[in-house]
Amino acid sequence: MRIVGVDFGGTTFTVGLVDAESGEILREEQHETRAWEGFEKITSRVAEVVNFIKEDAEAVGIGSPGSILNGVVKFSPNLPDWRDVPLADRVRELTDLPTFVENDANAFVLGEKWFGAGKGYDHIVALTLGTGVGGGVITHGILLKGYLGIGAELGHVIVEPNGPKCGCGNYGCLEAIASATAMVRMAKELKDEFPNSEIFKSNEISARVIMDAARDGDELGRKIRDRAIDALARAIAGFAHIFNPQIVILGGGVSRAGDVLLKPLRKKVKGYLMPSFINTFEVVISPLLDKAGVLGAASVALENLRR
Amino acid sequence: MRIVGVDFGGTTFTVGLVDAESGEILREEQHETRAWEGFEKITSRVAEVVNFIKEDAEAVGIGSPGSILNGVVKFSPNLPDWRDVPLADRVRELTDLPTFVENDANAFVLGEKWFGAGKGYDHIVALTLGTGVGGGVITHGILLKGYLGIGAELGHVIVEPNGPKCGCGNYGCLEAIASATAMVRMAKELKDEFPNSEIFKSNEISARVIMDAARDGDELGRKIRDRAIDALARAIAGFAHIFNPQIVILGGGVSRAGDVLLKPLRKKVKGYLMPSFINTFEVVISPLLDKAGVLGAASVALENLRR
Repeated sequence: MRIVGVDFGGTTFTVGLVDAESGEILREEQHETRAWEGFEKITSRVAEVVNFIKEDAEAVGIGSPGSILNGVVKFSPNLPDWRDVPLADRVRELTDLPTFVENDANAFVLGEKWFGAGKGYDHIVALTLGTGVGGGVITHGILLKGYLGIGAELGHVIVEPNGPKCGCGNYGCLEAIASATAMVRMAKELKDEFPNSEIFKSNEISARVIMDAARDGDELGRKIRDRAIDALARAIAGFAHIFNPQIVILGGGVSRAGDVLLKPLRKKVKGYLMPSFINTFEVVISPLLDKAGVLGAASVALENLRR
Repeated sequence: MRIVGVDFGGTTFTVGLVDAESGEILREEQHETRAWEGFEKITSRVAEVVNFIKEDAEAVGIGSPGSILNGVVKFSPNLPDWRDVPLADRVRELTDLPTFVENDANAFVLGEKWFGAGKGYDHIVALTLGTGVGGGVITHGILLKGYLGIGAELGHVIVEPNGPKCGCGNYGCLEAIASATAMVRMAKELKDEFPNSEIFKSNEISARVIMDAARDGDELGRKIRDRAIDALARAIAGFAHIFNPQIVILGGGVSRAGDVLLKPLRKKVKGYLMPSFINTFEVVISPLLDKAGVLGAASVALENLRR
């Protein structure tokens, strides 16, 4: 079976034709979203690309930022005019294919379950560490969405009481400490204190630059990395105590740091676990890398067709 | 249908004959556990009481402290020799009735779902605030147990990094701040600083005494209560972001404080929520009171028979 996966974002969208058995992406196209064009125009272009690429595909799966319920985008931070827009219905009409939509963090955990590190598991916690911190949870084989479909907001558990202000309005959320945005913000705030840090020698400060500096022994880099890792570790231990998962999977830009992130994180997580939870699960980085978006999106359709 | 519910504890056990339709407890007996007598003797006495009270009951449900999987108690903090003991099988043999066992916090949330504040709900978060802080979660209609059945340890999320030491070995767990035990410990630790507190005028310091003192304006009482409420509020907001529940239900001794706890707690929780979660759920105190144990235990059987 073939599925079209649409990894939809505020800046670009990627459409891929996925072989559901092998997880191979047979064809792929990336286009600009042009958020300012509005729902009708953007979805017309998305559907055009889907129709161009779909061949004998049986369904379309879409991963999109925002709060999504039953195929309707309630709102999306990067697409300000998208309020209660029927994304699934619209793409279904224009492509004549069954279409299913989930938010991108839910799509990510489904992608891991169908094609990635979560294959064969019924208890998975996934975190995407990017501009924000997204969460996706499979528990007892079910995608956790909650009563109104707005659950699994793992990035907004409070890990530092009275900590830094988060985009959501609260203080000390995981996202306010461990997202790429938060790490860059912290570097800028500490510039006066660490004027000679390697971080400020690069043209653009990014999570990548900070993690690289940390790896090379830069004091400010280490400070920011260690704080992010400590926050992540406390949050992951909490999720483990709550979900008793088989695996915790990290994705998103920050996770690309690899072992420099993973090794100290695993150690810290262990330190925050109750004895009975030690060695009951693994913490890994998504093996899907650049394919995570399209495969996650395709998995949204697979998960719905399976039911 | 009638069910025998066994609320089993380290000090006493209570056996009740429950009418499953009305939730009425038709007969009830309480006995001492005598933990030192060991598994065989204790379970013989439990079964004896079940047989005495069972009439035309169709099943037995047991709520027991400890880590429980498939009717087997893996370990139980108050019953030190209970390691991998087949509690369900043993009681089934001695009573000739289908017998089902869950840990007491899971039994509590099931009791709320079948007979209490969670009736008709598929998304429930429950916390028992007693000697420890227990957690029970129903998500998408399913009792959350996790991979090895040891999940829903909501009392062991970290709410104060580097906070007070918890019985589990970690620091700053919810249980280390908001349990009755933690509140009493904090009072004792602060005796030198608040020698004239009302709390130290009572014969025995208890969570009740502390909450009463707080209500009457005692400075130390307020300090301890406010810290517990703040920790609880952060944890509850986190559980809401994770589970997007319809209701959060509090039980256990500390919850008996009623409005003195509930009113400031609700306000604090609201302050820690993302905007989209405000007014999506209620925080309530269990209406089952003294019946929570037996009705929760009976619900363990009902939940299993329903499947």
